[in-house]
Amino acid sequence: MNIGLDIAGGDFAPDCNFEGIELAVKNLSPDIRLTLIGDERVIKEKLAAKGLDENLFSIVHAPEIIDMGESPLKAVIAKPNSSIAVGLKLLKSGQIDGFASAGNTGAIFGASVITLGTVIENIRPCLMTLVPKSNGSYGVLLDIGASADSKPENLYQFAVLGNSFAKFILGNPNPKIGLINIGEEPEKGNELVKATYKLMVDSSDFNFIGNVEGTEFFSPKADVLVCNGFTGNIVVKLCEAWYKVCRKSGLNNDYIEQFNYENQGGSPVLGVNGSVVIGHGISNGKAIMNMIKLTSEIVQNKLSAKIKEALSSNE
Amino acid sequence: MNIGLDIAGGDFAPDCNFEGIELAVKNLSPDIRLTLIGDERVIKEKLAAKGLDENLFSIVHAPEIIDMGESPLKAVIAKPNSSIAVGLKLLKSGQIDGFASAGNTGAIFGASVITLGTVIENIRPCLMTLVPKSNGSYGVLLDIGASADSKPENLYQFAVLGNSFAKFILGNPNPKIGLINIGEEPEKGNELVKATYKLMVDSSDFNFIGNVEGTEFFSPKADVLVCNGFTGNIVVKLCEAWYKVCRKSGLNNDYIEQFNYENQGGSPVLGVNGSVVIGHGISNGKAIMNMIKLTSEIVQNKLSAKIKEALSSNE
Repeated sequence: MNIGLDIAGGDFAPDCNFEGIELAVKNLSPDIRLTLIGDERVIKEKLAAKGLDENLFSIVHAPEIIDMGESPLKAVIAKPNSSIAVGLKLLKSGQIDGFASAGNTGAIFGASVITLGTVIENIRPCLMTLVPKSNGSYGVLLDIGASADSKPENLYQFAVLGNSFAKFILGNPNPKIGLINIGEEPEKGNELVKATYKLMVDSSDFNFIGNVEGTEFFSPKADVLVCNGFTGNIVVKLCEAWYKVCRKSGLNNDYIEQFNYENQGGSPVLGVNGSVVIGHGISNGKAIMNMIKLTSEIVQNKLSAKIKEALSSNE
Repeated sequence: MNIGLDIAGGDFAPDCNFEGIELAVKNLSPDIRLTLIGDERVIKEKLAAKGLDENLFSIVHAPEIIDMGESPLKAVIAKPNSSIAVGLKLLKSGQIDGFASAGNTGAIFGASVITLGTVIENIRPCLMTLVPKSNGSYGVLLDIGASADSKPENLYQFAVLGNSFAKFILGNPNPKIGLINIGEEPEKGNELVKATYKLMVDSSDFNFIGNVEGTEFFSPKADVLVCNGFTGNIVVKLCEAWYKVCRKSGLNNDYIEQFNYENQGGSPVLGVNGSVVIGHGISNGKAIMNMIKLTSEIVQNKLSAKIKEALSSNE
């Protein structure tokens, strides 16, 4: 398979990406061929400096760069030759099978929706993250910030998206879907979750197990945690803050280390026609390698097509 | 001063409360006289069993008990002789100076608002918690779940309430007020926070420093973190979950230990005419003692009157 990598993505680009390429070549399956997207001269120079044979890679020249601080959609439109815009066009046309970038999240997400289209009409794609569970498994949390405001039907769709990821990527045959709430009882919560509960409670699209409180985040109670993107984003960043607090205090173990972004690979864009993963802005080489790995798993398991199928059945 | 303690409050009531009383008598200021509210027979028996002289306390008979799972407001209305209802009536009539209970949060909060009234008209009282900061100070987070849905003007008032707590209880002369959001820029976030930002940005009621992301939760960037009760509740419970993860893994230090609910004393009800603190349901003796201590500090510093003053000035 052919995975496109945005050379200009990341706070430490381009170097972090070449460190990631070096690690990917060493550690990942030889079935993965990388298409490097960015300034061709920089790509050739950096490959040579690492002693990597440029014939091992496809190289696509895309000289424009979208900065981390730029207004996402404006930048994508104004810069058709940016690595993000070019990468997604390659994905759309089938020249690559998946696209991975640690660049501007809003730009990649917005351009993915526009360029690739959504798997069905009337769906709001979203971003997800993995949640390390205390029993050694991984859960899925979504949305983590693609939409700041959501409706009950959006949260319902997020559940379908998360269910598919847990099934087809994490290999969980019957994921337990929980709705993040401030109490367990159906009548608890804000208007959004109360209405969402009613939509989910009799769902035949997934195995809804009810409301889940913040205290159960890391417990095996639910495998997929559904919430609005505002709350999800704050939760993810709070976990990052906690991880840093632990590390700074010299506290660490295998479980805590699972919260290290380097090991997680980034956030897949769920609900678009294509396999896209957005890496953390501060990605280092290890994180870039894991982003490529996650993208390859999503491609391999045809997640996007399976999500389309799952959502089409209840249209 | 005279602090009323609900003997029936807490998952481990009444015993947890008598362990708390014993610790309070040993460790807290002798200026605090406790009024024990609950079944008189139980109170006298338990005091005797602990070897505590009943003449050191005031005892008020309130035989009815509101269970943790009961529908809050129904229970308060149906049980006028419950320890919660009686305690708040004693506070209203000035027979006690503050009321502390580890009982049903919804019942105590709702009954506080109804019995004591709000400090001004058109204010939504809220619940807060302390946030241990990485620099050794404490921040304030509010609302943590009193309201599941809020309007911009509610969040503005929460800022005034948190500002008063930080000033008068934590002794911070000029607290930095931050609005919890998913990005730093004013245009980021959901409709609620975007509208709230506009209300806060030119405020002369407090020192607004802008949006604060989840990653900055424990940093000294803001002293008061304002958010809707839905998100705040999930954040608090997530911190509890993290604390448990750390403890279970044998990871602990002085900083992590500040997240132990036992040390925090509970959540003050801000915005009502009176000093009320709600303890954690699972409170043990140490937590009960710290709940009594926090209540006494709020009484001592006349927080409720100072909040009334702060809010009246911008009516």
